[in-house]
Amino acid sequence: MNIYVTGAATTKFGELWGVSPRTLARQAAFGALKDASVEAERVEALFVGNMLSGMLGGQEHLGAFFAEELGLSIPAFKIEGACASGGLAVHNAAFSVLSGQYETVLVLGIEKMTDHKPEDVATALMGAGSEEERSAGATFPGLYALLARVYMKEYGTTQEQLAAVAVKNHYHASLNPNAQFCNPITVEQVMKSSKIADPLKLLDCSPISDGAAAIVISKKKKGNSVQIMASAVATDTLGLAQRKSMTELKATQEAAKKAYEQAKISPRDVHLAEVHDCFTIAEILAMEDLGFYKKGSAAGAVGKKNHLVINPSGGLKGCGHPVGATGVKQIAELVEQLRGNAGARQVKGAKIGLAQNVGGSGATAVVHILCKVR
Amino acid sequence: MNIYVTGAATTKFGELWGVSPRTLARQAAFGALKDASVEAERVEALFVGNMLSGMLGGQEHLGAFFAEELGLSIPAFKIEGACASGGLAVHNAAFSVLSGQYETVLVLGIEKMTDHKPEDVATALMGAGSEEERSAGATFPGLYALLARVYMKEYGTTQEQLAAVAVKNHYHASLNPNAQFCNPITVEQVMKSSKIADPLKLLDCSPISDGAAAIVISKKKKGNSVQIMASAVATDTLGLAQRKSMTELKATQEAAKKAYEQAKISPRDVHLAEVHDCFTIAEILAMEDLGFYKKGSAAGAVGKKNHLVINPSGGLKGCGHPVGATGVKQIAELVEQLRGNAGARQVKGAKIGLAQNVGGSGATAVVHILCKVR
Repeated sequence: MNIYVTGAATTKFGELWGVSPRTLARQAAFGALKDASVEAERVEALFVGNMLSGMLGGQEHLGAFFAEELGLSIPAFKIEGACASGGLAVHNAAFSVLSGQYETVLVLGIEKMTDHKPEDVATALMGAGSEEERSAGATFPGLYALLARVYMKEYGTTQEQLAAVAVKNHYHASLNPNAQFCNPITVEQVMKSSKIADPLKLLDCSPISDGAAAIVISKKKKGNSVQIMASAVATDTLGLAQRKSMTELKATQEAAKKAYEQAKISPRDVHLAEVHDCFTIAEILAMEDLGFYKKGSAAGAVGKKNHLVINPSGGLKGCGHPVGATGVKQIAELVEQLRGNAGARQVKGAKIGLAQNVGGSGATAVVHILCKVR
Repeated sequence: MNIYVTGAATTKFGELWGVSPRTLARQAAFGALKDASVEAERVEALFVGNMLSGMLGGQEHLGAFFAEELGLSIPAFKIEGACASGGLAVHNAAFSVLSGQYETVLVLGIEKMTDHKPEDVATALMGAGSEEERSAGATFPGLYALLARVYMKEYGTTQEQLAAVAVKNHYHASLNPNAQFCNPITVEQVMKSSKIADPLKLLDCSPISDGAAAIVISKKKKGNSVQIMASAVATDTLGLAQRKSMTELKATQEAAKKAYEQAKISPRDVHLAEVHDCFTIAEILAMEDLGFYKKGSAAGAVGKKNHLVINPSGGLKGCGHPVGATGVKQIAELVEQLRGNAGARQVKGAKIGLAQNVGGSGATAVVHILCKVR
C-alpha cells in the first residue's frame, strides 16, 4: 500500500489522575503532528479510537468532541471495537487515505480509566463480551483464565512459562520512559502475586490505565516516514462457548493471513511485533496465531533469544493498556523502532514490524504490518 | 464517485417492545442483501452505525456482535457520531470501497431506545452535547428551542410555520408503511400539544424509536443500483455557546458545499432531500443551510409546492428517529425514490436525492448525494 505513517506520539501511560482526557488528546495529537512536521490545518479528518467514554463518562460524539478540543473543524469519527478500537481506527483511517478522498489524516487512540471505580470499569469492559458471558458474571481475567487452562492442559505449559511473558515485558517496559511500570520483575514475584482467576495471577494481567497515542497517515512520504504494508481485520464469535477451539484465536489467524498476503511477506520476515498481551496467555496465543511459532511451542521460546522481538514497548502488561489507545500506541512503537529512534529498547536492524490488536477475548483482531521506507 | 448502493432495506420504525435488536438487524441486513441479490458470503465488511448500546445496554463491540448475529465472519466496525452515527457509517463504508480494499460492504444502522426509561434515554442522548450543556442539565429539546427562539426573533417566523413542518412530515409518513406514525395531523393539533421546551411542543419533536436500516455498497453497479455522487462530513463545536451564529448550522453548510463540489451539481439540481428534522426548527435550518432556500425564507415555503420535496419518508418527525438507524434509513429512502419504487409517496421524476444527517445540535453533519444510474 502506498500510504505512510509520517508522525507518531504517545503520552505517558499510567494512573494519571491529574491529567484530563483533553490534555492527553492534545499531547498525543500535537506530538504526532509535530513529529510529522505537519501543520494542523493540513489534517483533513480525525479518527478516534475509544471504547468506554460513553459507558463510564456519559460522553459520546467523541469525534467532534476531540476535533473541537484540537481546534480542527474537520470530519471526525469515533471507531469502536472494544479493546481493538485503536487498531480499527487506524484501519479505517488508512483506507480513507487509500480511497484518495483524504490526503492526510490523524488517528487518536485514547482511554481514561482510572478515574472510575474498578468495579464500574470491569462491568464496562464486559461490554466487549457476549450476552451469555455478561449475564453469567464472567470477567475478562476469568475468560482468559479458561483459555490458559485449556492451553496448559493441551500442551503441558506451566504457570512459570506464562509468568516469563510478564517478566520479559516488564523488562522491556523498564526501558520505555512512557511505560506505566518501570520495575523489572521476576518469575517468583509473578508466582507469588495474588490470584485473580486461577491460573492467572495479578502480574499475569495488564493494568487499568490512562493514556493516548496518535499517528499521522498520509499519501505522501517524507524522510522519516514508515510505510503501511498491510492493514487487515477479522472477527469471530463474541463468546468463547461458540468457538471450535480454545487454544487459538481464529480472528488473529485470519487477519494475519490477509496481512501477510497484502504485504507479500512471511512471518519469518518480521523483526519485531507488538502483540495484544492483555494477559500472559494472550501473548503465547498471539506468537502462534501470527505464525511466528508452531502451535504449542511458543511458551518455550519466551525470554530467549529469538528470530524476532515481541513487545519491545513493554506490551499491554508492562507499558499499560488504556484500551482505545493501545492499538494506536502499537503503531507508534513500530514507527519509533523502524526509524531506529527507540533508544535503550531499540530492536537492532528492525526493518519490518507487525502489530496485533485484539477486541474482547478475540472477537475482533486487527493486524498491521509496517516497514522502513526503502 | 464510481460506487453504488445496490440494495437497501428498512424495518418498521416505532415502539417495538416485542422485537429484539438482533431481529431488527437481521430484518434490515438480510433485506438489503436480498434487495441487492447479493449472497451474504460476498460481503467483505460490516459498518454498524449506533450511538446508545453501550450507555443504555452495556454492550459495546457492536461490529463483531452483529457480524456474529448475521453469520458473517468478516471485518466489522462500529462507527459513532451521536445521531449522525448512521451517516458516518455510510461515509466510512463508501470510502472503504473507494479505496479498492473492499468490493462489497454492508452498512447497518440500528437503535433500540424504547426498552429503557425515558429519563435514561434523555441522559444518554446528552452524551452528544458539550460538557457544559450536560452539567447544566440541558436537553436536546431545550437546545433546539434556543435555536428556534433566536431564529424566530431574527426572521419573524411563527410557531404555526414551525408546526407546518410536522404537519407535512406526518402526512408523508402516513404514506410510508414503515413509519412510526400513520396519522396525519393539523397545525391546530401541533399548537395544542403539550409544551416540551417553549416554543417547541410535543408535536414539534421527533419521537423515541426502535428500528434498523441497511444498505449494500459496491464497486459494481447492477440494473437497479443508485450511484453515490458525494459523501461529505463536517464538524462544529459540540456546544451552542461556542458558535458564532445560532440561525445556521455551519457543519451542514460545509458538508453541503463539499458534497455539491464532489457531485458537480448545485442545490437547484436536487429533486428530493431527506433532512435531519429532529425538531421542526431543524428542518427549516436544513432547508437553508443546504442551499435550497435563502436564509430566513424557508419557513414560508413549508407545505407549499416547491422545486423539491423534503422528507418524503416522513423524516425523523413522522417516520421515527432510532438514532443510529436514521442516517442509513435516509439513504434507503433515497434509493427507493430514485428507483421509482416508493409507492404512494413517490416523488415524480426524482433523479437526484440528498441526505443530511446531524449529530447533536450540529456538531457533526453528513451529506450524501445520490443519483439514478444513467
